[in-house]
Amino acid sequence: MLVEESPPSDSDESTDEELVPRQSVTLFSPPESLRLESGKRLGPITVTYETYGTLSPERDNAIFICHALTGDAHVAGRHKSNDRKAGWWDGFVGPGKGIDTSRYFVVCANVLGGCQGTTGPSSLNPATGRPYGMEFPFITVADIVNVHKAVIDHLQIKKLLAVVGGSLGGMEVVGWAARYPDHLHAAIVLASAPRLNAQAIAFDKVGRRAIVTDPCFHNGDYYGHPEKPRFGLALARMIAHITYLSEQSIETKFGRRLQGSVELAYDLQKETEFQIESYLDYQGKRFVDRFDANSYLALTRAMDYFDLEATHGPLQTCLGATAARFLLLSFEDDWLFPTAQSRTIVRALVEAGREVTFAELPGGHGHDSFLIDAQFPLLQRFVEPFLDATYRSVRSE
Amino acid sequence: MLVEESPPSDSDESTDEELVPRQSVTLFSPPESLRLESGKRLGPITVTYETYGTLSPERDNAIFICHALTGDAHVAGRHKSNDRKAGWWDGFVGPGKGIDTSRYFVVCANVLGGCQGTTGPSSLNPATGRPYGMEFPFITVADIVNVHKAVIDHLQIKKLLAVVGGSLGGMEVVGWAARYPDHLHAAIVLASAPRLNAQAIAFDKVGRRAIVTDPCFHNGDYYGHPEKPRFGLALARMIAHITYLSEQSIETKFGRRLQGSVELAYDLQKETEFQIESYLDYQGKRFVDRFDANSYLALTRAMDYFDLEATHGPLQTCLGATAARFLLLSFEDDWLFPTAQSRTIVRALVEAGREVTFAELPGGHGHDSFLIDAQFPLLQRFVEPFLDATYRSVRSE
Repeated sequence: MLVEESPPSDSDESTDEELVPRQSVTLFSPPESLRLESGKRLGPITVTYETYGTLSPERDNAIFICHALTGDAHVAGRHKSNDRKAGWWDGFVGPGKGIDTSRYFVVCANVLGGCQGTTGPSSLNPATGRPYGMEFPFITVADIVNVHKAVIDHLQIKKLLAVVGGSLGGMEVVGWAARYPDHLHAAIVLASAPRLNAQAIAFDKVGRRAIVTDPCFHNGDYYGHPEKPRFGLALARMIAHITYLSEQSIETKFGRRLQGSVELAYDLQKETEFQIESYLDYQGKRFVDRFDANSYLALTRAMDYFDLEATHGPLQTCLGATAARFLLLSFEDDWLFPTAQSRTIVRALVEAGREVTFAELPGGHGHDSFLIDAQFPLLQRFVEPFLDATYRSVRSE
Repeated sequence: MLVEESPPSDSDESTDEELVPRQSVTLFSPPESLRLESGKRLGPITVTYETYGTLSPERDNAIFICHALTGDAHVAGRHKSNDRKAGWWDGFVGPGKGIDTSRYFVVCANVLGGCQGTTGPSSLNPATGRPYGMEFPFITVADIVNVHKAVIDHLQIKKLLAVVGGSLGGMEVVGWAARYPDHLHAAIVLASAPRLNAQAIAFDKVGRRAIVTDPCFHNGDYYGHPEKPRFGLALARMIAHITYLSEQSIETKFGRRLQGSVELAYDLQKETEFQIESYLDYQGKRFVDRFDANSYLALTRAMDYFDLEATHGPLQTCLGATAARFLLLSFEDDWLFPTAQSRTIVRALVEAGREVTFAELPGGHGHDSFLIDAQFPLLQRFVEPFLDATYRSVRSE
């Protein structure tokens, strides 16, 4: 499956030990293309990934992190010394942190269908020399997991110490457990679900609708056009962003405060008056600079489609097939992935006689709580001893 | 203020007692134009309204119903015998129903800024002979209430038995109590709030964004164009519609069931696969046939702006100014207007020593519960005795 591995692309910076190199590998080159869940085939597939820490000689300390919908492989650290921001989970992953990279070897790879280095709709289709666009095949969470499993094979890691992820990443984690039960010692599932509820599908739907009705969408074939479907993609992000937060968190942060004014304008032409509006505008604008509309369509649809039981049979059976221990954490104020959905998984694991730890944390930032710095000390209180116990158990085998 | 009253427009049908005539009156003709809360003036203003039941000789049995955001004056009954649907609250308003029109005289008028017969952005601007569009002045809930008060004056009703409304309608009710404390005996506030929270403003914002980024919006001046901003308005409705329902209600109604298929299509071009998507599509499409995009912008902004305390001072003072008795009902699964917001009003009324009845009902359909037939028996158990007690008290004065 392995074709070639590129050198770290930031090699000019590699003298600085603190900097994280981007890595990539091309897999599934024809005729060994990937058979997708839809039945179609795709290949070659380039995967961008990053690693942190050092793989033990026994290759038994590897943790795979599954990023969320709009995340990427850049979990922690900086690519260049002047990067304004560190990776998306930098507060939780690093030496001495919740996932301790002085002890564990951490891998994160961008998802199939994404737009942050792994093959997706904006990648060049080798058959045409142009971006795939709508020609990109329909992908599912199972396909994403299969590609990541190939990266782990490529790194010659037989069994992961743990697979960790939140939201879409958590779907991938339970997908890993169901598909590759013998290749992980532990699973950590944050703010996730065995399937989306109708409300979450509804929000995904209106987001996609915003994109496909943008006249710059051109049925997905917008790459050659000067204008991208920016308004539609920004709007999709704004809608979704509301669902990532809790009512209380935005009430506390913004309330009814005005943006850049002490008085209401009484003017419909002034589209943005309240701080919450300005905040959403900003989130939308920032998003379109880093994300591809077709990837957004593909990945939200993959989330809608995800249904572990429909694919693998009863949860108790498909999750009971692994001997891995589980840690599930949900957040009390997460209304996009309500705690009840985590409980469904927990109940199935208990019934299957699996070792499972579950807690509903207060959150405070809704669905996004697992990404918020203020939550990391509490997350660490669960994740660190769970990983430690798993690693001790593995070492004593 | 009164200029002229048009005859019921369905006069050809008026021989049939069962049919409800549309009525209208033109008020605020210059120089007696309405001074808006913004300071601007507007007039003339035509108001479409309907009445049900008979005004008592003492003119003491009148109930004014304030409709919600996209509602209209057509509360109950049919305009024509072949109308497919009856008015929006037909199950609750009528002879022997929750609001008994064999006993009370019920009035409902379309809101200022609306598009169902009362002057709004799609009405002709007498100064130009063309629809107002973005020239329509900015309006607020206070302006809406002032116009409705003028309709009540026109009907020569000095004091209403009750003002009743849900959601935006409930904002109008508390606005009535604060502005016209001596002109109502009772106030019934359903699923409402003294102001929107940041989350509700956020949802209004993304809805408006969908409209103004529709290329057919033409900065609000779309009336002369063959294409209206249909996609944007439909999307705004779809987004809002999700917020009107509860997670559980759409889970029960739709779950993950597919629309018109037993199998997933694995095809991104198939935009609608789940029943919940088809339902939202339908809601969006149906809405654009009956609603004007500029009215949607104006009225959602009026809701964002509404803040009883900011306009009238502390709730305890501004609501304590009326001797009216209050009934407040909220719904447990209404996350757009959470119960806590009703409680804020209740607490202020209690502190002001006012007579107030409050209940949080189970709901079952989220914010929309007050509009759902299945809820009417329970609503009636509160509303009917409350109105009865009020009317007995008025009669014994």
